Amino acid sequence: MAYINIPENLPGIRGLMAFRPETAQHINELAEILLRDENSLSRGERELIATYVSYLNDCFFCQNAHGAIAQHYLNCDIETLDKIKEDIESGPVSEKMKALLSIAGSVQKSGKAVTPQQVDRAKANGATDKEIHDTVLIAAFFSLCNRYVDGLGTSAPADRQFYVNRGKMRAEEGYRSFDLYK
Amino acid sequence: MAYINIPENLPGIRGLMAFRPETAQHINELAEILLRDENSLSRGERELIATYVSYLNDCFFCQNAHGAIAQHYLNCDIETLDKIKEDIESGPVSEKMKALLSIAGSVQKSGKAVTPQQVDRAKANGATDKEIHDTVLIAAFFSLCNRYVDGLGTSAPADRQFYVNRGKMRAEEGYRSFDLYK
Repeated sequence: MAYINIPENLPGIRGLMAFRPETAQHINELAEILLRDENSLSRGERELIATYVSYLNDCFFCQNAHGAIAQHYLNCDIETLDKIKEDIESGPVSEKMKALLSIAGSVQKSGKAVTPQQVDRAKANGATDKEIHDTVLIAAFFSLCNRYVDGLGTSAPADRQFYVNRGKMRAEEGYRSFDLYK
Repeated sequence: MAYINIPENLPGIRGLMAFRPETAQHINELAEILLRDENSLSRGERELIATYVSYLNDCFFCQNAHGAIAQHYLNCDIETLDKIKEDIESGPVSEKMKALLSIAGSVQKSGKAVTPQQVDRAKANGATDKEIHDTVLIAAFFSLCNRYVDGLGTSAPADRQFYVNRGKMRAEEGYRSFDLYK
């Protein structure tokens, strides 16, 4: 049971969004802009950054909910996604994405953990300023979401297949669908 | 110089907001709702939570910008504010605020670091569910802001008095004033 009185049938962040719709609206707008709006990083790449940070923060709900959406876009299975999270450098992602995921991994620790060398590596592999900006902001945004979900003790279905089964639907719905948390 | 090409005359988060106004709008809306809208926690108490988390994250810009606004609302000097940040338990704040700041300090580390005992203490000292929710979300939100500001290597005036001098004006302007970052 969560630390505050939220609807029990809405897992993870969804119960919190029902509890405080004023803030939920802008959290969802940020998710929509960062993860789905027009961008030179694909939706799958951006969901992968979200999933990787949530994995590093050990946030079960976020890493599985967004992992399932990443799987849908990247057309890969759960084992492949797990391998990327565990070792980005040997995973089946582009050199640019390895550099950006490395930056995201530093942001998960602290903003100050990002080094000029990490940024240089990303630029050398073709990353634009906007891609670097969005990588840092996606990682910072999931540092918020993971703390929000776990800091209020929300519950989440333990079966990872629950999330995988919903990945395609969630990808199609997007984050502006307020019915998600009503 | 920041890691990406942002206006050099806008310190801290302001240059980033000018670079990406689409996300800036919703970050500012969250700040307005969490820190300034009608709430049983005073504006000063909420800015104190923001300042404390930014202090723990060692984010110079955020802890001074929001510290100055907290000082303005709480009508205290910089030394008093520094003492509260360094040792909340012996600081001149209410028992409820000590319990809430303790929760915020855990959120700064990780959502999972918050304990049922911390939440029980807050409730025993009169904290409502909404106050506990908003404390966690303010702490999570500044976990975002601190990482955003430092993760992109932004610069900030080193003189703490610069921020103190602007505290009253910033408190009156609020966070919806888009001229802030234009």
